[in-house]
Amino acid sequence: MSIVVVGSVAFDTLKTPYGERSKILGGAATYFALAASQFTQVRVIAVVGEDFTAEYENVLRAHKVDTAGLVHAKGKTFHWGGEYQAENINDAKTTFTDLNVFQDFDPEIPAGYRDSEFLFLANIDPVLQLQVREQLPKAKLVGSDTMNYWINSKHAELLNTMKRVDVLLINDTEAKMLAHDANLPRAARKVLDLGPKALVIKHGEYGATIFFRDGEFEGKHHPFRAPAMPLEEVVDPTGAGDSFAGGFMGYIASQPKVTRAVLKQAMFYGSVMGSFAVERFGTERLQSLTREQVEERLQVFRDLTHLD
Amino acid sequence: MSIVVVGSVAFDTLKTPYGERSKILGGAATYFALAASQFTQVRVIAVVGEDFTAEYENVLRAHKVDTAGLVHAKGKTFHWGGEYQAENINDAKTTFTDLNVFQDFDPEIPAGYRDSEFLFLANIDPVLQLQVREQLPKAKLVGSDTMNYWINSKHAELLNTMKRVDVLLINDTEAKMLAHDANLPRAARKVLDLGPKALVIKHGEYGATIFFRDGEFEGKHHPFRAPAMPLEEVVDPTGAGDSFAGGFMGYIASQPKVTRAVLKQAMFYGSVMGSFAVERFGTERLQSLTREQVEERLQVFRDLTHLD
Repeated sequence: MSIVVVGSVAFDTLKTPYGERSKILGGAATYFALAASQFTQVRVIAVVGEDFTAEYENVLRAHKVDTAGLVHAKGKTFHWGGEYQAENINDAKTTFTDLNVFQDFDPEIPAGYRDSEFLFLANIDPVLQLQVREQLPKAKLVGSDTMNYWINSKHAELLNTMKRVDVLLINDTEAKMLAHDANLPRAARKVLDLGPKALVIKHGEYGATIFFRDGEFEGKHHPFRAPAMPLEEVVDPTGAGDSFAGGFMGYIASQPKVTRAVLKQAMFYGSVMGSFAVERFGTERLQSLTREQVEERLQVFRDLTHLD
Repeated sequence: MSIVVVGSVAFDTLKTPYGERSKILGGAATYFALAASQFTQVRVIAVVGEDFTAEYENVLRAHKVDTAGLVHAKGKTFHWGGEYQAENINDAKTTFTDLNVFQDFDPEIPAGYRDSEFLFLANIDPVLQLQVREQLPKAKLVGSDTMNYWINSKHAELLNTMKRVDVLLINDTEAKMLAHDANLPRAARKVLDLGPKALVIKHGEYGATIFFRDGEFEGKHHPFRAPAMPLEEVVDPTGAGDSFAGGFMGYIASQPKVTRAVLKQAMFYGSVMGSFAVERFGTERLQSLTREQVEERLQVFRDLTHLD
């Protein structure tokens, strides 16, 4: 089944220990769409400006991503600037944030998207996330992301949105902040009490853990952990989390039923897609990726963690 | 086969978010011995003072640990004081270090230990580690630990010792410091160039990874990762790393051959023993532990990581 993603399609200007790139294709929805497109058809809802030429849109189209929901507004495309230091490569330092047309983003679902049973709410204002979620009332599985900024500044709105989300994907810091608890498994339990049936906590280079609410997905409360790839070269960490979400949700949407086994397998595909994303600048590696390479790396992830 | 461990047998005075304990049994060699004793016979080399009464030694003896190498010296036993905060439970803050009789520790191997084919050099002065290692020239597999203090203050001596060690077990910070590299897999490769055939890097609550030197243990350079247990209550993190080492080395020593498959399984047993150690204060949990409980938890670790 196809999956709808709402989020940013943007330009990034980046500096990492491996070099610099100016105004390259980026944005959470872009990374998500390219990663998920390995598994299923993706439909994007986002807003871009006049500088977002056909050349960029064609990157998405080349991966059969439906861009009917990509609104072209007057003005410039959202543009983010970030830097990473070798000492702490996973920690982005924002150099500038030009919201541009994204400031007035008012997401609407095209009629052609309405039969989608899967939805991912990338990291945007929880009010907009809820607005989109309510426009797809029959969605079988809704995933979402969020960040510190929304946890602090729109807490009540975020809690509202979370009640309508099936799987929340956040990182360690965000989980601890949301639960007001420094112990991760305990924080996970408290976040699950806020609504989601499952919670994926991303640990960066240490992988990710999925926690299940007791009784959901035919099973007992019992977490599952996927590793991350031990990479000697992290060229550009931008989009790793969104690529994880794309692999995770894309695989789920490609399966006939959402079972616990599917969610576990999806954790591995999420990690696989995240590991590819950081190998080159921007979306470069995701653009050239084949399904065969995805399966090869999945085997590497199995060898990395399985005793037999 | 039996395994010899050299290291500290000590008293700990601890404060954690779960309470306080004064002058309880501790020390790296103690945790190691109790954990390893689940798998094989352990022989301890350490020094204690006059306040180390039979009551304490009997804890080791109850686990069939050979204490022929436990020297009773004039004076007081090594006594460490530490505190842990809820916000960062894995970060010990030393409140005092009374080396006492440990200051003049001059380890010697009793005649009865000389047929041991396995040896673990717990975290002590690398000069003493080498001294013990050279007294067991025929050891089939030698593991060792170290810490920031020795990496800085006895660097040349540590490098010497490392050339005579088969498996080094350290944490992320120590690996990065030893290799002068902030990227963990790259740091691992550089540490392996210093001597060991395999390197276990412990990631605290994220588990541990074993890196193999290319060509060693019948295989290609290809790491393996064991998870840690997601625990809602870490009562006392003291000794987690030494208990990991005990489970890891103890299992290896119990096997007829040291293969890559054995080392991978040993990673899981290491994590299992670490997870038990932190459930109660000091060595309390390791003292009451049965092999059946160890196997039960091993199954939990499999379920946590294995897709099928």
